[in-house]
Amino acid sequence: MASALPFVRPDIQRLAAYVPGEQPHDRRYIKLNTNENPYPPSPRVLDALRSAINADLRLYPDPMAGALRRKAAAVYGLAEEQILAGNGSDDLLTILVRTCVGPGDRVVYPRPTYSLYETLVAIQGGTAVEVPFPNDFALPVDGLGERGQKVTIVCNPNAPSGTFTPLAVIDDLARRLRGLLVVDEAYVDFASETALALVHRHRNVLVLRTFSKSFALCGLRVGLAFGAPDVIAALAKVKDSYNVNRLGIVAAEAALDDYGWMQESVAKVTGTRSVLIEGLRKLGFQCLPSQANFVLARQPGTDLKLLHARLKDEGILVRHFDTPELRDALRITVGTPEEVAVLLGCNAMRA
Amino acid sequence: MASALPFVRPDIQRLAAYVPGEQPHDRRYIKLNTNENPYPPSPRVLDALRSAINADLRLYPDPMAGALRRKAAAVYGLAEEQILAGNGSDDLLTILVRTCVGPGDRVVYPRPTYSLYETLVAIQGGTAVEVPFPNDFALPVDGLGERGQKVTIVCNPNAPSGTFTPLAVIDDLARRLRGLLVVDEAYVDFASETALALVHRHRNVLVLRTFSKSFALCGLRVGLAFGAPDVIAALAKVKDSYNVNRLGIVAAEAALDDYGWMQESVAKVTGTRSVLIEGLRKLGFQCLPSQANFVLARQPGTDLKLLHARLKDEGILVRHFDTPELRDALRITVGTPEEVAVLLGCNAMRA
Repeated sequence: MASALPFVRPDIQRLAAYVPGEQPHDRRYIKLNTNENPYPPSPRVLDALRSAINADLRLYPDPMAGALRRKAAAVYGLAEEQILAGNGSDDLLTILVRTCVGPGDRVVYPRPTYSLYETLVAIQGGTAVEVPFPNDFALPVDGLGERGQKVTIVCNPNAPSGTFTPLAVIDDLARRLRGLLVVDEAYVDFASETALALVHRHRNVLVLRTFSKSFALCGLRVGLAFGAPDVIAALAKVKDSYNVNRLGIVAAEAALDDYGWMQESVAKVTGTRSVLIEGLRKLGFQCLPSQANFVLARQPGTDLKLLHARLKDEGILVRHFDTPELRDALRITVGTPEEVAVLLGCNAMRA
Repeated sequence: MASALPFVRPDIQRLAAYVPGEQPHDRRYIKLNTNENPYPPSPRVLDALRSAINADLRLYPDPMAGALRRKAAAVYGLAEEQILAGNGSDDLLTILVRTCVGPGDRVVYPRPTYSLYETLVAIQGGTAVEVPFPNDFALPVDGLGERGQKVTIVCNPNAPSGTFTPLAVIDDLARRLRGLLVVDEAYVDFASETALALVHRHRNVLVLRTFSKSFALCGLRVGLAFGAPDVIAALAKVKDSYNVNRLGIVAAEAALDDYGWMQESVAKVTGTRSVLIEGLRKLGFQCLPSQANFVLARQPGTDLKLLHARLKDEGILVRHFDTPELRDALRITVGTPEEVAVLLGCNAMRA
């Protein structure tokens, strides 16, 4: 049907769209498929949102989300000019790829990782150079190093492996690269280190954060990018004028005001993560150490599509990726202790 | 400084960013500069939002905003598959330009119009072909007709002129074009006709709507695109997975449920629009007929930058565009009768 829509770019006609995890309307599912936080956002966030439900919603948001950027600057120890707010970190990824990648420009990242990178590069007509992770998911720094690319992306902790690359390795990689090094830290609050300090040391490092996971605000769509002021200024030219909505800005500000709530939420999740990994190993799965709010459970050589379907039949949603490298694995979000107990005890997992 | 950021595309380095209207923190201003609705959103919208402030905000939104699309399908008489939701209609404009326009591809639109079109085409490395409007802002159909372009954009009512092109003219233009004809109807609820019916007649027509203006929800960032199912499917491949946030979806659904509230709001605004136009003409301004929630007030040959500044000094914000075609005009949003009275009676306007 390609010729039937002559105004759609060939790149887009060829594109297989990124498929997000299922969002079922049936709320009886135990939902461990899209890495949402099992705990709610801070009560202060909900209070702030309630206060913002008023006639002012008729007005546009602040285009640059200044109040949020100033708050984030104080919390994370950077200047306002080093921060850009996005409609989730997906928006920031889209913006940065549009800013840096033209037709044929190279983007390098390890594989497997967040599959949106591949989609965004394809939409731009760029060339994705995918460097395989070794079995232990240690970052393949030599493969990622200078190859004439415009952008290098490291998801850290990596999705869907949950594995973590130490800061010193990222620092070394940043030094080797002339192009932009994007450190996608969507899950970093569940990990032991952050690359934020590298923004001060390297003008070519951009760190992405989101309020979706640790702050439990997937529904509000707010992410932050941290980088050099001139990089942030270039990204700001490409973003939509009013990309973050008023309530998203309010929620993110309030979430930063109750940082302790996020830390407690993270502590509960990382505690349960240990239980989940131990339980999965006892059931015969291989699990790499995870510093994220999910784990990758593998049965080498066995296609786990059927197990995924059986779990769904038992009311448990997990994520299965139907690719050669990931077919024998399930990505399982760390839920509540009760949810994890149900998963570990269900018939499908014990079969 | 271009060479200092080798990873930023030359197109972006050259780009002058779209400048949105000022969003002052000082609430004492009479704000007639960004075409917001002077009346609040429906109380049902605020109630629905309050009900949605709960722990579910930890969950992602429905990627395709299915419930909103189904409601819009019923209200506007189309199928769900003919509708895509966006993070405001700016998001939909961004998505469609990314879907259709590659380097060198032509995009045709009349000028002056919404300046974001030019920005989006430049970001894609496309070629903008700008066809001047005549003085009466009648659509230059011959100039816009088939010139090998991928996309043609008609903002109707047009911004910043407020003028309206009858449906029959748009229909004729759609027939002449092989590429996509985008009818940006951000302001159409303030007008007498809509091009929605053309979606049934022409596979290459895409109509854009927003909840920002008539529904008074600028702050929530929700827009809708209406088009052929295969065009909508192509756009859906390019959009961010979770581009509309949970509260935006809730607000837009509730707004459609109280369609009468929007119509009453529109009736008040269009009533005041007549008062504003009459008053401006009495003050010596030229005003074209407007079918939007703003009017373009012109003093041919006089740069109105100074008047814009004087109005600001008197606490009234209006929009001035510093371009050759628009330097002698102000775009003034229709406010409440009280706001319009203050504007028409202030010292700057009577000087």
